[in-house]
Amino acid sequence: MKIESVDFFYLKMPLIHDIGDGSQDALVVRIRSGDLTGWGECEASPLVSIANAVCPPSHSACWNIVDQVLGVEIHAVDDIFALGRCVRARGMDIAQTAHTFSGVEIALWDLLGKKLEEPVFRLLGYDTAYPKIPYASLLFDETPDKTYQAAREVQSQGFRAVKFGWGGYGQGSVEDDRDQVQAAREGFGLDGTFFVDAGTVWNEDVEAARQRLTALEEARVTWLEEPFVGSALHAYRELRGHCKTVKLAGGEGSQDVFSAQHLIDAGGVEFIQIDTGRIGGIAPAKTIADYALAKNVTFVNHTFTTSLALVASITPFAGVQSAEICEYPFKSTELAKSLVIDPLVPIDGQLVLPEGPGLGIELDLGTLSEFLVDVEIKIDGKVLYRTPLV
Amino acid sequence: MKIESVDFFYLKMPLIHDIGDGSQDALVVRIRSGDLTGWGECEASPLVSIANAVCPPSHSACWNIVDQVLGVEIHAVDDIFALGRCVRARGMDIAQTAHTFSGVEIALWDLLGKKLEEPVFRLLGYDTAYPKIPYASLLFDETPDKTYQAAREVQSQGFRAVKFGWGGYGQGSVEDDRDQVQAAREGFGLDGTFFVDAGTVWNEDVEAARQRLTALEEARVTWLEEPFVGSALHAYRELRGHCKTVKLAGGEGSQDVFSAQHLIDAGGVEFIQIDTGRIGGIAPAKTIADYALAKNVTFVNHTFTTSLALVASITPFAGVQSAEICEYPFKSTELAKSLVIDPLVPIDGQLVLPEGPGLGIELDLGTLSEFLVDVEIKIDGKVLYRTPLV
Repeated sequence: MKIESVDFFYLKMPLIHDIGDGSQDALVVRIRSGDLTGWGECEASPLVSIANAVCPPSHSACWNIVDQVLGVEIHAVDDIFALGRCVRARGMDIAQTAHTFSGVEIALWDLLGKKLEEPVFRLLGYDTAYPKIPYASLLFDETPDKTYQAAREVQSQGFRAVKFGWGGYGQGSVEDDRDQVQAAREGFGLDGTFFVDAGTVWNEDVEAARQRLTALEEARVTWLEEPFVGSALHAYRELRGHCKTVKLAGGEGSQDVFSAQHLIDAGGVEFIQIDTGRIGGIAPAKTIADYALAKNVTFVNHTFTTSLALVASITPFAGVQSAEICEYPFKSTELAKSLVIDPLVPIDGQLVLPEGPGLGIELDLGTLSEFLVDVEIKIDGKVLYRTPLV
Repeated sequence: MKIESVDFFYLKMPLIHDIGDGSQDALVVRIRSGDLTGWGECEASPLVSIANAVCPPSHSACWNIVDQVLGVEIHAVDDIFALGRCVRARGMDIAQTAHTFSGVEIALWDLLGKKLEEPVFRLLGYDTAYPKIPYASLLFDETPDKTYQAAREVQSQGFRAVKFGWGGYGQGSVEDDRDQVQAAREGFGLDGTFFVDAGTVWNEDVEAARQRLTALEEARVTWLEEPFVGSALHAYRELRGHCKTVKLAGGEGSQDVFSAQHLIDAGGVEFIQIDTGRIGGIAPAKTIADYALAKNVTFVNHTFTTSLALVASITPFAGVQSAEICEYPFKSTELAKSLVIDPLVPIDGQLVLPEGPGLGIELDLGTLSEFLVDVEIKIDGKVLYRTPLV
């Protein structure tokens, strides 16, 4: 099966708000071979990754993505792993490479699954896609009272787990943060599982994080996510020494397998959160799912965009029964909600991956057209990229 | 001093060869405030970083560079450090951010130095810029005989140190690699300092690297550079255990302070190589220079483009007398050679930083015009970026 076309589509909401909601735009990838079409999505700045897809080369390790993928033969799982290694080496000096290739790689899995008439999770060696317990992932609201109301709404919709994060958390006083966390716990009820996401707000400041631990433990928070940037391994390790009941989670920024492994081994996180749209796709995410299992660490997907990204992010650990929690964007935009026909939604508090070939989803091409951004990049008067036809 | 404009210029040679020569293109940054102009350079894929400079935001942690820099007040050294932290946080989810900001940050130092009428190395707290011993940095040639000739040429030009790397090194047999290394040593003579750069060719394969150690030690190679990708810390650490006389070097890919620190602490490199054009500029590079000194590790610049990048890359460790080696691109392109009027060249086997204000260099605007690439990026019909006037 020869890769005949690789197309990037930049979608966005009419207005982008300056909040931590990653579902306001999307970069969708379409790959074609013969009659078959595979779809993927990058968790990336769309324009930056489009430039990365088509940029003129700078030297032998600074090469674009499309040149490495067009014309390649993909017949088996190993071909996708091998292509991933090649693209990474050839694009080593372009920092954006892993973000951009991720969507391509996901589309290749979708395509290969369609060709072989198998769901991707089975190509990965899993017999079964176990149901996951989705946690509703949302942002802390402006006031504790609004956060309380939001938590009640989540609870009323039957979710067994919730995560609040970002907003102003970690930027104000310790008391402000305590009030937000307490409000979320009270709104959601005492029974549910509750996570807090600090969104790297303390960079590497262990003391700032440590001061919030008492409130988190009083509210029976299961994990504190990303107190620090992902490369501040020493800070994760030090904070872990201060934790009594709360565990640490992180890893969404990982752009390769090694970085995620370091967070586990040196950082001491007990939940490793991988975004298939950033780490380079499904193959490296699966490698980390295997690694986490061996290390007694729980793999969790990271995702905050469309239902296409949601399915792709769950696939790498679909068959790991013990890793039963998965992220589920609760208040995503119209774009993110409508990109996939028949999107994955919780049923009886559970998410079950589709069993169809590839990723088992179908895109709504009307949504693709409706939110499409018209981009044109010219170099010395010649068009290098123009938004392709849907 | 308010930042009034931030302009990116993409320069390239007419033809880009598929070899490891990073001097074939360049991304130059010009920042203006009143009558003053500062210049910097990104070690980055130019088109990708231009897109990163101006891209529409995706959410609160996925923001472009120019919006963070335009209009900012820069009066003192701390303002540049603070802006770097801000840009990193606001651009956290764009992998390219550190590459792109690097050139901006270097231009800000140049500008501030001009404003305060001080060389940048003095703004960093160094009294003196100690002379450095440049090593001629070049690629292994096609055959051992050609490599021998190249090494002789370097030696005849008075260099006391040389580095060969890339080419086919590490990709063929152990014997082929030995022949190349021997030829380089023989051509350069027995007295000189000799380094070998594997260019991450073995990814994380310790055994492949280990098999080359005997030949490297027989040829009295001082350091083996980048046997593995920079995040494969375990592989660096394991290989170090097999080294008798050869030391390990790495770090050019570091995009933040933490990654470089990990290579020192967990990877065990004894030479840490930082590219100010990638790590986020001069401030984080200086932080690593301080850290390396405290850890008894030798800081070395990484640079393979223009004389502007060369000066910027030496500045962060200009005052560290014990770190006396610096990289010097030996066979760079016409573009790279001519961008700076009166470029830094070795005199009596030494390089001395200029003492003028800022980076102490002047750009040849004729070169800037001659190699300039005309880029235009449009979004929904509106021009988002167009190559600025020189």
